[in-house]
Parts: sequence; structure tokens; C-alpha cells
Amino acid sequence: MEKSYIGVIGSGDKVTPEVLQAAEAVGELIAKAGGILVCGGRMGVMEAACRGAKRGNGLTVGILPGNSREGSNAYVDVAIPTGLGFTLRNFITVRSSDAIIMLHGEVGTLSEAVLAYQHGKPLVALASTGGWANRLQTAALEDGAYLDERRLMKITYVQTPEEAVKAAFALVGTVSAPSKI
Amino acid sequence: MEKSYIGVIGSGDKVTPEVLQAAEAVGELIAKAGGILVCGGRMGVMEAACRGAKRGNGLTVGILPGNSREGSNAYVDVAIPTGLGFTLRNFITVRSSDAIIMLHGEVGTLSEAVLAYQHGKPLVALASTGGWANRLQTAALEDGAYLDERRLMKITYVQTPEEAVKAAFALVGTVSAPSKI
Amino acid sequence: MEKSYIGVIGSGDKVTPEVLQAAEAVGELIAKAGGILVCGGRMGVMEAACRGAKRGNGLTVGILPGNSREGSNAYVDVAIPTGLGFTLRNFITVRSSDAIIMLHGEVGTLSEAVLAYQHGKPLVALASTGGWANRLQTAALEDGAYLDERRLMKITYVQTPEEAVKAAFALVGTVSAPSKI
Amino acid sequence: MEKSYIGVIGSGDKVTPEVLQAAEAVGELIAKAGGILVCGGRMGVMEAACRGAKRGNGLTVGILPGNSREGSNAYVDVAIPTGLGFTLRNFITVRSSDAIIMLHGEVGTLSEAVLAYQHGKPLVALASTGGWANRLQTAALEDGAYLDERRLMKITYVQTPEEAVKAAFALVGTVSAPSKI
Repeated sequence: MEKSYIGVIGSGDKVTPEVLQAAEAVGELIAKAGGILVCGGRMGVMEAACRGAKRGNGLTVGILPGNSREGSNAYVDVAIPTGLGFTLRNFITVRSSDAIIMLHGEVGTLSEAVLAYQHGKPLVALASTGGWANRLQTAALEDGAYLDERRLMKITYVQTPEEAVKAAFALVGTVSAPSKI
Repeated sequence: MEKSYIGVIGSGDKVTPEVLQAAEAVGELIAKAGGILVCGGRMGVMEAACRGAKRGNGLTVGILPGNSREGSNAYVDVAIPTGLGFTLRNFITVRSSDAIIMLHGEVGTLSEAVLAYQHGKPLVALASTGGWANRLQTAALEDGAYLDERRLMKITYVQTPEEAVKAAFALVGTVSAPSKI
Repeated sequence: MEKSYIGVIGSGDKVTPEVLQAAEAVGELIAKAGGILVCGGRMGVMEAACRGAKRGNGLTVGILPGNSREGSNAYVDVAIPTGLGFTLRNFITVRSSDAIIMLHGEVGTLSEAVLAYQHGKPLVALASTGGWANRLQTAALEDGAYLDERRLMKITYVQTPEEAVKAAFALVGTVSAPSKI
Repeated sequence: MEKSYIGVIGSGDKVTPEVLQAAEAVGELIAKAGGILVCGGRMGVMEAACRGAKRGNGLTVGILPGNSREGSNAYVDVAIPTGLGFTLRNFITVRSSDAIIMLHGEVGTLSEAVLAYQHGKPLVALASTGGWANRLQTAALEDGAYLDERRLMKITYVQTPEEAVKAAFALVGTVSAPSKI
């Protein structure tokens, strides 16, 4: 059977111990469920998720914004330096994922959540971690479900790492890609 | 003196007559103030803004998502077909603007607003047009001023096309580009 | 009638006076024939072509590799800073052109010629200016006509600026875009 | 020790049995030498190289041009669908490689060789496979060593898969990235 690629998005710096702990749990659960972890390959939430995935004997992929593998965290198995900056890196991270889990998140993470919504990649927000994972719910339409009137794809909000990973795997393959992106 | 490039962002379809009227006024005022209008080159808010700019004898630039100039509206003077899809098109529209005016807006416009904030391009939201131009104010921090805790750049909210264009020109050159995008 | 966008590609530095003179003549002839000049917006061949186009009262567009308009030459009317490096800049320059004239050229110009061939943009090489505009003819198949066995599009070799501009306008619209790029 | 990422570039279709055999040998030797194989993830030379790498128990990475993993060959372990077309896919394949081996090759492969040269990625051309891997040698300066007068990086020409893989590993880390790309 084809493996699922699960993206984990969240801030690379100034992350609280609680959020890091949640990211590590998410990474470990993805690996134990047989998924390949995809992320931005750097520090903060990304490093914690990769560390968790390696503890769970999983495979980790980091899509990097810079020209070299140097900024990669120590738990990335396959590092892809895109050399095209953060916007393109985020685009490719989203495109490479079959479903995406969002933890906390500043504006870079928000941009990835928007891309996930636009490209029909199931998005699970771990709302208990705060940041945009929580703020989106009050900003978007119908209790946070939709980012615009086109109602392209429903966003799922959860409270625990277990719920997040379970929801992400369950959502793989359920969304048809929107015709216009 | 160097001309200012003012970006206008907003939806390409399902736009109300009130929003189109505002977009046309914004375009005309940009042209009369000597600015070059930059936009996504297509219909809806983009077409209305270009029509206004041509009435004001201005120059209009359309950055297109597709492979050809065919989808361009009739009021675009210089059409650049990027052939790289909406995400890259939005990126280049933002990069080419010295300040940006946002009208209404669905998720594509939100993604451009996020890019403007990340890249330090002054952003003026015409909140009276609704959509994300209005919703951002309740979602973001400190009355909508900042999209994240890093407080990279203050977003300006206005109520009329006149205020929007005046604010946009006043803000050109005031923001230093963030070191990390 | 729709205006034609004619791309001019060639090196940005270490260009001989003879090549610069040819570039200026090409730019002026494009403008006088009613074309919009598209180029990389910088120095060398690009600056000379833009200067010629302005003498011919034409409109000039520069697609820039960097984040700002600062590196643009003084004869560019519309400058688009893509902020995505040389590869993407070259890609968009090619995509925005209806036909392309190549003068001399180092490896960056070669990469644009390759993109033109791949994307079905008629390519006219001013072989008398040397560099890859001349070298391609010995390297490619059938007297330089084709860059690969797929024979996607025939390259045209000429000896004077007049022939180059005449050939470029004549070739606009003659090539159907290849299905696979 | 950090693993080396070795890129393999070559045509995706109309490849002769001899070239496929060479690609498979190259892939197997990369894997046995402990390298990670990076390629465009599709058929022809790419599939043969991946098949060889899996026989050698290596890890294979495919950078895909489309929106989904569907066009990937059966021997790719980690598939990254970039959704940005061939030009960007080729760019990221090159950026992700520490050294690159070129087999035969039509115009797409030529564009990757040009990118390798521009970005300072050591390039080994298996000239005995024909195509641009052979044609470059007659077209470029000083017996094919340099693609332009700037002499950014010397291209290496070899005759056997063994020589190609040996040269590629030996060249990793020897080229400093050019300041301007």
C-alpha cells in the first residue's frame, strides 16, 4: 500500500514547551501509523515533530527555503533545499502532503494553512496550541470551517495530538483538488 | 521622480456592484496621483480597478497566473503571463508593488495580504468592502494591526477609496523589508 | 490590434561595443515596428536594447531577478522585481515574450534560449554577435535548427539587427506551444 | 557522516536499451557507495537509475513536475510533487544534489546541465551515452569544460558508469557556489 505523507506546520522559533511537546507527540504518532512526515525541515515545531517521528522509527522529509542543507534540523532524513525562499518552500511542503496538521503558528504557518485550503489538502488545526491554529476558528466562516464563501474544503479543529493524527489519516484522499488555484 | 507602483488586490468573481464601484474609484485615484497600477490582470476587482486607472490616464500592469495573455482584462496595458499558477502570480504581484490596497477578498486575496505583511509591503484594507478586508481586523492582533506576534508591519484600515489611495501613497517607502521571509 | 511583446536576451556584463550597438539597433527597430520590448531589465545587452527602444518611442518592460527595482536600467518603463532569482526571472521573461531575439550570450542567455525552445517561443539568434547565439548553430541538430530530437521548434539564425527584428515579428503566432514542458 | 545526494539527469522517454542499462548501473553504484539518489522521479533514465538504486538498497528521491505523485516511477521512495512545471522541478532537482551525473539527454536534460553549471553543482557527463551529454563537449569552451567565458565550474566527461559515480562522489564539496546565479 502507498504510504501517506502527513505535513506538520508551525513556527520555527519562540515556541512554548507545551507546543513543542504536542509537536513531538504528533510526529511520533504519524510515524507509528506508518506515515511519512513532511515539514519545513527547520527548528521549533518542525524539529520537535521530526524528533518524535524518528523516535517512532518513521521517515522524515524537510523542504528547506534556502540554498543548502545547513539549516536543516538533525532529525530530517531527506532534506530538499529549494533555494526559492519561504513562499515557494511553503507551497511545495503543502503540495507534497496528503493531509496537514497545524500547531500554533505565526504568519508563515497561516500562509501554509491558506495554501492547504486553496489546494484541497485536508487541514487539521490543533486549536489547543493557540496562535493561528486557534485564531482561524474565530476569523473564518461557519465556526472556522471555511476560509471563504466558495467553501472549498472544511477545516477540522481538534484538541489533542491523538485526535489530530487520527483525523489527518482519516481525511487523506477525501478532498478533490479545486479546479482553480 | 520615480513612479510608485500601487497594487490592488481583490476577488476575480462574484463581486458586488458596490465593491466594483470602489475598485474603479481606487484605480482612477491611483492613476490621477501618478501611480502605476499593478494587479492580477483578470476580472472582478482587478478589471474595475484597471478601468478606473485608464479613465484616469494611468498605466496598468497585470501579472497573470496562466501561460498566455488571453485571460487578461481589456484595460491592462502590460500583461505578464507567468505560467506558474496563482501562488507565484500573487507573490510577484506583491513583490512588484510599493504599497497595496485590498478590497473585500476571498482566500486568494487573503494569501496576497499575508504575503504583503511578510514582505513588508504597506497594506491598506478598505474595510467597508467586507470580505477578508474586514475580517482580518477581528482576526489579527491589536485591532487587526498585526498578523503575528513578530509585529512585522502595521496594517491600515480605511473606509473610503479616497482614504485608501491617500494612505497607500503616504506609506510607500515607510516599511523596511523584514530580514526573513 | 494587440501589440506584440518581443523579448531581447543577452549578457548583462562584459559585452563588446559591437554587440551593444546591435542590441540598441534591435531595440529601436522593435519600438518603431510597434512592439513592446521585454527583457531582464538590467545592464549590458538589456540596457542597450531598452535605450534603443526609448529612442524609438517604444514601451520597455524589465523582469528583474531581485527583490527591488534598484538594479533596473534607466530605460525601463515597467520594472517587475520577481524576487525569485535568475532562473525564475528568465522563465517569466520567456513566457512574457511572443518572440525572442538572442544576441551573443553567456550561460544565462543559453538557459533562456533553451526555455524559448521548450515553451515554443520563436527564437531568432543574431549569430554575428558571437557567444551562444553563434555556438548553438554548431551544437544543435540540423545546422542548429533544433535543440533536440523532438524537433519542437526551428531556431532562426540571422546576421543583422534588421533581419532579426523582421524575423521576430514574422514568427509571432507561428509556433503552437508544445504540450509538454 | 552526512550522506551525499547524487542527482541523475536524462530523458524520460525514447531512451535506448544501452542508455537505460548505463542509468541502472549508475543508480546501483550510487546506492552501494552510500549516496541518496535524486532525480526527476519519472520514466526513462530516471526509472532505470531508481531501479538500480533499489537493487543496491539505496534511498531514492523523485522531484516531480506535476501536482500529484501519480506520474512517479515504482522505485521512488520519497516523491515530492512540486506542481510548478518542468522548469522549477529541474531547478529543485539540481539544488537538491551535491553532484550530478548526466546521461544522454534531450533539451530538458540540457536545461538541467546548464542549471548545474550556473549553481556550482559538479557535473559529470557520461559522454558515451550520446545526446547532450556528448554534444556539450563540442559546443562548450575548452573541450567542453566550460559553458561560458566566466569559467564558473569545469564539467567532467567520462565513458563508463563506474567512472561517472567515482567522479561524482570525488567532486562533492569541491565547487564553491557562484555568487551570482
